[in-house]
Amino acid sequence: MKELEERILAEGKVFPGEVLKVDCFLNHQIDPILIGRLADEYYRLFREENVTKVLTIEASGIAIAIMTAARFGVPMVFAKKSKTKNIAGDVYSTPIFSYTHGTTYDVMVSKDFLKPDDRVLIIDDFLAVGKATQGLIEIVKMAGATLVGVGIAIEKGFQCGGAELRSRGIHLESLAIVDSMTDDGKITFRES
Amino acid sequence: MKELEERILAEGKVFPGEVLKVDCFLNHQIDPILIGRLADEYYRLFREENVTKVLTIEASGIAIAIMTAARFGVPMVFAKKSKTKNIAGDVYSTPIFSYTHGTTYDVMVSKDFLKPDDRVLIIDDFLAVGKATQGLIEIVKMAGATLVGVGIAIEKGFQCGGAELRSRGIHLESLAIVDSMTDDGKITFRES
Repeated sequence: MKELEERILAEGKVFPGEVLKVDCFLNHQIDPILIGRLADEYYRLFREENVTKVLTIEASGIAIAIMTAARFGVPMVFAKKSKTKNIAGDVYSTPIFSYTHGTTYDVMVSKDFLKPDDRVLIIDDFLAVGKATQGLIEIVKMAGATLVGVGIAIEKGFQCGGAELRSRGIHLESLAIVDSMTDDGKITFRES
Repeated sequence: MKELEERILAEGKVFPGEVLKVDCFLNHQIDPILIGRLADEYYRLFREENVTKVLTIEASGIAIAIMTAARFGVPMVFAKKSKTKNIAGDVYSTPIFSYTHGTTYDVMVSKDFLKPDDRVLIIDDFLAVGKATQGLIEIVKMAGATLVGVGIAIEKGFQCGGAELRSRGIHLESLAIVDSMTDDGKITFRES
């Protein structure tokens, strides 16, 4: 998506270790006009799929997911990160390893909000190694629901998450795929 | 707001200790149609205020805040909860005590995203004792920005947070104010 790539080039910052900071428009300060256009694009890409739920993970996926859910007119559910195994109520739960924080945490979704007849679109801001997305897919499976696809804003194409999902036949749509970043800030996108 | 009160009555669950669970439409599963109407209402209530930023706190405030920011056509910023004092970059930070979790955590906002000429509308899903809101107000002050008001979805009117903010002359708009809850589930709203 041209507009997203232009924003990344204009406002993204590259840090050593292949860190891409886009916290001025995507995950700390968030531009609702841009997010609305991402949501329009996910609607265009998945509108034939009879989506009944949009699923994401707190915190930075929530903004994109709620605006996408608004386009589809279906509920959004966000998986909660929990520090403890001692979770109240009946939930689907799976451990996710975070490379950003170097720690494993459990994420959980109440069993009330994912059912076998749900057709789930997973939405998140970033895809790199893909542990968070895989955790969400695991939760969709636990619920016996159908995964219709995964919509990502920015995929780090030089890491394995996207390739792994595509090799499993999952309908993955990343609106910008960064194929390389250099420490002096040069970003190259995959041709769409 | 009639529609919000009706949803609380129809789908909210009261638990002992004056706990109101609305996680089927407000803070775990989220209804984007309802949230859009809350956003419309905040726009109606604050549109004369020349809002330049909508500020909230992760995680459950994000959905309401981004849709509100979309109505105003201004950026949304969410304060991040941090486990460590060792925060990267230049941030405004303040400790907030959480009664829900019985612990104090730091919240932080990058100095890049709140400036002295900003006119800030704080949005959150719940107001009870008001510690989270007070922390956000503190951050607005640190930035030298102007607080134009606070928009809350559900205020627990029998707790002190709302009265305290109003007594300080802050323009607080709560779209539903619960004046009492009984353990057998009876909820009474304040007349608007």
